[in-house]
Amino acid sequence: MRPRAPLVIVSALLLAAAPRAQDPGAQVRSYVEAHQEEIVRELVNLLSIPNVASDHANILRNAEHLKGMLAKRGFSADLLETTGNPLVYGDLRVPGATRTLLFYAHYDGQAVNPPAWNQPDPFKPVVREGRLYARSAADDKAPIEMICAALDALSANGLKPTSNIRVILDGEEEAGSPSLVPAIAKYRDKLSADMMLIFDGPIHTSNRPTIAFGARGILTGTLTVYGPKAGVHSGNYGNWIPNPALRLAHLLSSMKDDQGKVLVAGFYDGLQPLTPEEEQLVAAVPDDAERMLRAFGVASPEVAGRSLQQGFQIPTLNIRGLASAHVGPGARTIIPDRAVAEIDIRLVAETRAAAMRDKVNAHIVAQGYHLVEANPDEAARAKYSHIASMAWDPSATEAFRTSPMEPHSRELVAALTRVYGEAPVQIRTLGGTVPIAPFIDALRFPAALVPTVNFDNNQHEENENLRLTHLFDGIVTVAAVLRM
Amino acid sequence: MRPRAPLVIVSALLLAAAPRAQDPGAQVRSYVEAHQEEIVRELVNLLSIPNVASDHANILRNAEHLKGMLAKRGFSADLLETTGNPLVYGDLRVPGATRTLLFYAHYDGQAVNPPAWNQPDPFKPVVREGRLYARSAADDKAPIEMICAALDALSANGLKPTSNIRVILDGEEEAGSPSLVPAIAKYRDKLSADMMLIFDGPIHTSNRPTIAFGARGILTGTLTVYGPKAGVHSGNYGNWIPNPALRLAHLLSSMKDDQGKVLVAGFYDGLQPLTPEEEQLVAAVPDDAERMLRAFGVASPEVAGRSLQQGFQIPTLNIRGLASAHVGPGARTIIPDRAVAEIDIRLVAETRAAAMRDKVNAHIVAQGYHLVEANPDEAARAKYSHIASMAWDPSATEAFRTSPMEPHSRELVAALTRVYGEAPVQIRTLGGTVPIAPFIDALRFPAALVPTVNFDNNQHEENENLRLTHLFDGIVTVAAVLRM
Repeated sequence: MRPRAPLVIVSALLLAAAPRAQDPGAQVRSYVEAHQEEIVRELVNLLSIPNVASDHANILRNAEHLKGMLAKRGFSADLLETTGNPLVYGDLRVPGATRTLLFYAHYDGQAVNPPAWNQPDPFKPVVREGRLYARSAADDKAPIEMICAALDALSANGLKPTSNIRVILDGEEEAGSPSLVPAIAKYRDKLSADMMLIFDGPIHTSNRPTIAFGARGILTGTLTVYGPKAGVHSGNYGNWIPNPALRLAHLLSSMKDDQGKVLVAGFYDGLQPLTPEEEQLVAAVPDDAERMLRAFGVASPEVAGRSLQQGFQIPTLNIRGLASAHVGPGARTIIPDRAVAEIDIRLVAETRAAAMRDKVNAHIVAQGYHLVEANPDEAARAKYSHIASMAWDPSATEAFRTSPMEPHSRELVAALTRVYGEAPVQIRTLGGTVPIAPFIDALRFPAALVPTVNFDNNQHEENENLRLTHLFDGIVTVAAVLRM
Repeated sequence: MRPRAPLVIVSALLLAAAPRAQDPGAQVRSYVEAHQEEIVRELVNLLSIPNVASDHANILRNAEHLKGMLAKRGFSADLLETTGNPLVYGDLRVPGATRTLLFYAHYDGQAVNPPAWNQPDPFKPVVREGRLYARSAADDKAPIEMICAALDALSANGLKPTSNIRVILDGEEEAGSPSLVPAIAKYRDKLSADMMLIFDGPIHTSNRPTIAFGARGILTGTLTVYGPKAGVHSGNYGNWIPNPALRLAHLLSSMKDDQGKVLVAGFYDGLQPLTPEEEQLVAAVPDDAERMLRAFGVASPEVAGRSLQQGFQIPTLNIRGLASAHVGPGARTIIPDRAVAEIDIRLVAETRAAAMRDKVNAHIVAQGYHLVEANPDEAARAKYSHIASMAWDPSATEAFRTSPMEPHSRELVAALTRVYGEAPVQIRTLGGTVPIAPFIDALRFPAALVPTVNFDNNQHEENENLRLTHLFDGIVTVAAVLRM
């Protein structure tokens, strides 16, 4: 990693707005217009190789094909063996470059259920009304084609990237990338860079070029409050045997107030108020709150005056499911034996999963509960008036965030601003969780997501599609990054 | 109805403890011992006629058979036509009697699933280890046989009842007695009495003779708190779209505190503290709290220091079910579209269903909710930040209670005390709900339940059974009532 320059925000923001001589936008656009058919054909060929992560034979066909695509662009390309599917790796040294960028994309895709698609075979791509329909058209083979085409466009115009470029293509992302983090130890040298750029995911719903500097993590768990061993008659024992559903309601209410504030001690520890510059970035995200609320049928957000993006900067405590005995036709007049709440906590960079688990556990204990690991035994039942279990899923995903104000971040923003004539949407923290986060976390260098595909791409569903205009714009975006 | 005497509690309690000359216990016991086979045979014959309420042909066979059984004991017996199954009616005038008692029992039974029984046919009774196994052996043909045998026992000893006796046998109790209340208008004269005694249900778990002067009613409803129109991603919208499961938790917590007190305004209106005599009765019920808590696996009751029977004197607010999205393997990381709580409210005599519905509705509105009848429409969703529905089941059952201190009640207690040498268990209010309550409510004269069968009778289940000792003791109990 090269030493970082001191942060001078005002000049960086000015810089972002000023087009530079090396703006490759016009030349790349001309190239793409002249080569649309060739670009789409190369992507169609790639999409024609089935890529479900468990389909080992086809995964290897993809990997070999991708190695060839990279080699064609001058990469020193190779397959890196892992404990699972191979990583496709390419290294492109640029004479005089002082910066190395690591590009990440993935070549595996979600499973398919062909009868649900409007085409016979999700691996026989179809173009319809300006969209290319196929599994992985958007998620995540399009960005691979964008990288290749952007290099072709630069080359055709006698331009080179301004950074050394390393490409790592994951073959297990949709299966949770189990081999990615373990591969770091083996290939640390190949993976080292000044910044990683993740080419995955859809652009902002405003349809404007987008960069995301972080994403929330996630931690899930199951909270159970125990009542009588089995449901008891609500008449014969009502007002005497305690009701676990009411107790769960009180416990959940004690965790988060009805004004949207989590009351678990230390839940927001470590969070700093945003700097004025960060607040400005967050406020500038063009979310159409009114349209979203109308679409969801909600009159007002959880906290008056807090925007969607402001909410993303802090962790959540969300009840994603509730159950106790039965509702509807199966309801019976009983005091239930237990009440269950499924919880998810969206983490931010300052709040790590292990600490959050401990804080929630401590909160439950502080409410007078004896915490058990599984169903309480007779001895526990005889001893403790309030019994609960809090079973955390061990596979939490941590959050990540690279400061949007650090030099690499500003250079990236400046590069996109130059080709598009306006600053991209800059997301300080994505609300959701990206599977690549543990990899980013383990590599310990700056990272940003550069999404390129249309947000209505039916990702993970039937009829996944890529708008061709987004494919072509994405090439411009990648070229800008190559020249940042 | 005859005018009631002024209530003199102390002397009534003394009276209850003092055996009187007309105690028929010994004579009845002798008769029963000598006629056990004959008594059991008559009950077996009755149990051999299938009696599911929907089986019209067999119901009529039962009715005719029962009419014959009553006529044999000198009743002027008849079948009373209703909108459903006939009522079997008997009227026995006793010269010189100044009081009329109306005895209620039912001759229909729960449906049967023969393969689940330990005998080939639930309508071919079997005696095994001192118990008679058959559908309706306990619920509720045994009491009919007890009435007949008790009259035989008195007659054999040259005794007559001390009251005029009217018997009404319901053929639809297990189907909710839909024709019973409507029949009152048609047969008011035949049904008039000074007190109704309901011979149904099991005795107290202490196995001691039992009288119950009231029972709680029940009101059920479904509370739904609405969130977004469909579940939304907990990452992409967490901290922005309100969570209906958390809101439901707060709403339920606002309805009842964690100390067992309902906070709905006016919920306990009309309730008077128990008089010292009533408190004494309630305290005297020999519930084995320790044993019950151990059996249920609960360390302590909902409210420290409040007994089971004390809890029965006040209405409940019980959460009998909860649901929101999914728990367990189906859980997804979403903000759910709604959260549902199934509620039951056990009513007492002072709290009528309609008023309780209004109070709970008003409470929900007071928490800031807009109440809708069904799924909110777009206009409601756009206008109101908090939307809920509270769908009440219209078929509530009211509570009933006859003062355990009024003269008829004291006379009944005294009669049982005489034959058993100790006061019966006196339940001021049963925790559960009895289907006969609307009939008691409509007749508007004192009523008490006189349960007689064993509490482990598998009522409503397979292998329903009657302990023969309870059959024989029940005859003594009924004879005591006949001579009260």
